[in-house]
Amino acid sequence: MLITVAIDAMGGDFGPSVTIPAALAFLSDHSDARVILVGREDVLAKELAKHRPPGDERLRIAHASEVVEMHEAPATALRGKKDSSMRVAINLVKEGEADLAISAGNTGALMAMSRFVLKMLPGIERPAIACSLPTTHGQVLMLDLGANVDCTPAHLYQFAVMGSALVSALENVERPSIGLLNIGEEEIKGNDVVKQAGELLKASDLNFYGNVEGTDIFKGTTDVVVCDGFVGNVALKTTEGIVQMLAAMLREEFKRNWLTMLAAIIALPVINAFRRRVDHRRYNGANLLGLRGIVIKSHGSADAFAFRCALDRAYAEAKGGVLERITQRLGGHANEPVIEAENLSA
Amino acid sequence: MLITVAIDAMGGDFGPSVTIPAALAFLSDHSDARVILVGREDVLAKELAKHRPPGDERLRIAHASEVVEMHEAPATALRGKKDSSMRVAINLVKEGEADLAISAGNTGALMAMSRFVLKMLPGIERPAIACSLPTTHGQVLMLDLGANVDCTPAHLYQFAVMGSALVSALENVERPSIGLLNIGEEEIKGNDVVKQAGELLKASDLNFYGNVEGTDIFKGTTDVVVCDGFVGNVALKTTEGIVQMLAAMLREEFKRNWLTMLAAIIALPVINAFRRRVDHRRYNGANLLGLRGIVIKSHGSADAFAFRCALDRAYAEAKGGVLERITQRLGGHANEPVIEAENLSA
Repeated sequence: MLITVAIDAMGGDFGPSVTIPAALAFLSDHSDARVILVGREDVLAKELAKHRPPGDERLRIAHASEVVEMHEAPATALRGKKDSSMRVAINLVKEGEADLAISAGNTGALMAMSRFVLKMLPGIERPAIACSLPTTHGQVLMLDLGANVDCTPAHLYQFAVMGSALVSALENVERPSIGLLNIGEEEIKGNDVVKQAGELLKASDLNFYGNVEGTDIFKGTTDVVVCDGFVGNVALKTTEGIVQMLAAMLREEFKRNWLTMLAAIIALPVINAFRRRVDHRRYNGANLLGLRGIVIKSHGSADAFAFRCALDRAYAEAKGGVLERITQRLGGHANEPVIEAENLSA
Repeated sequence: MLITVAIDAMGGDFGPSVTIPAALAFLSDHSDARVILVGREDVLAKELAKHRPPGDERLRIAHASEVVEMHEAPATALRGKKDSSMRVAINLVKEGEADLAISAGNTGALMAMSRFVLKMLPGIERPAIACSLPTTHGQVLMLDLGANVDCTPAHLYQFAVMGSALVSALENVERPSIGLLNIGEEEIKGNDVVKQAGELLKASDLNFYGNVEGTDIFKGTTDVVVCDGFVGNVALKTTEGIVQMLAAMLREEFKRNWLTMLAAIIALPVINAFRRRVDHRRYNGANLLGLRGIVIKSHGSADAFAFRCALDRAYAEAKGGVLERITQRLGGHANEPVIEAENLSA
């Protein structure tokens, strides 16, 4: 099975200087992968010339004359940038020329264009942003991370279906465990939306663990953690904030005087091993889930290593058949809960 | 000005073996403080005998025959444990014999009893749990951390008033800056409740900074961060989770082999200095705000150092006149926004 990736080669803070080396490394890792670099042909050809491209049919350029700016309003980009690298990459998925699209560009624009071009999967009302995070003994998939600020129980249920399918596709686990993010393990706690979502999940044939708390995310209590986009976004960004603070403080302590600097040098291999384990670049690549196509958002400031990690993730998803798995879970087994979900959200 | 503290000496995972040494250390630090130890007289006298109590009028025991269990249902404790150390400590505040009550016991029971005995401050509809957290250059006060899962814009506004008053009392800042936790800095983002709360805050004479994101909490962008109890609780517990994970991973890396263990020994002074800076025990002591009395909740697993930190915080609040400041902010200046807030919440 050949996997073709459409890369918005102009997107992100660094554009082709990051996307092209990452694409080439990705191609050399996966002999069954093809890449379509989307963007301004002259710019891409110039960057390609700096490297040693494979020179076969596995890599080609699709010209797109425009670029979506990082802070452009999604609606403006959607209406005005029809020949942007982002839009053309998504079009390639729609047309069946690529199995997935990946971009490090403007998240809002990517979401708006993807929804407009690809449309939603049947049974899914809202797209969700999903991301893998490290745990003490593996990974956890968390969603939604900011696509939806007000969710109904039905939306949360659908996020669980999509999260379950994605983990199945990525890690070959048949029935990933699902945790519903709440503020207490007891069923009586939490707000009404979460309580009703819990009922839907219990009635479904998903592997529902029950409520989980914030501490459970990084403990890896469940394979998937489901929450609304407001809560998920706050949790993720709070985490980013404390990690930055701890890193800054640790750096300060090691730089305090020549003795502590000596200690830093001696401890360097350990610190580096630790940093490799928690390296956020390894977790780069968020999914825009719920669409009739695979769309991956890379962090805008991703370097070539981070972008390649996102490419690897995208490749694994396409291989694992994530879309088929979502459709199957909604159509095959989970019909009744969906009907119930629609009633609740009405 | 003399400050009298009523301590639920039986509360928490360790009871008198933690609360009594902490109380004695607290008394020796503050010559204008008095302590009333509330609990079973025989148990407390026995523990006191192990130490060197001041032996003057600054320390006395108030007998209470019962103890609220850590996992007792709040309603059961409220109805059934009228002679518990927790309840009697709160009663002492009500009767004016103590300036504040502190307990490391059951949070739900403490909240229920405090609301029942002390009642709410005028203009405050819901109590909130507030806690200080470290930032790169100081502290931030965050609320609500779990008392309210569904908040109206008016509640969020009232939390801001209380948070502002508390920071004023603790740190002698006249107009602490207030951030409203949201998922984007732009005003258009966020859910309706947060947007409307933003309008109320803008119309008030509080020092409203605007929206802040999760990353801003530990950056210390504002002195106060306001959010609903669901979001606040998830953010706080997620933070706890990642800190535990990072600490465990760092420990693992340092224990990998004899070389890394040697590095650990050499780096130990630096690691310890770092740990002192981020020591969560220093931030022990959450406020149950909005009541007609100061009530502080210590972490249940607090040791004597942590409990003493909570005592210090409680003392500073009473000295700073936090209740008067809240009342003044609501009554003196903030009348109109409160009226507006009531309309919105209806």
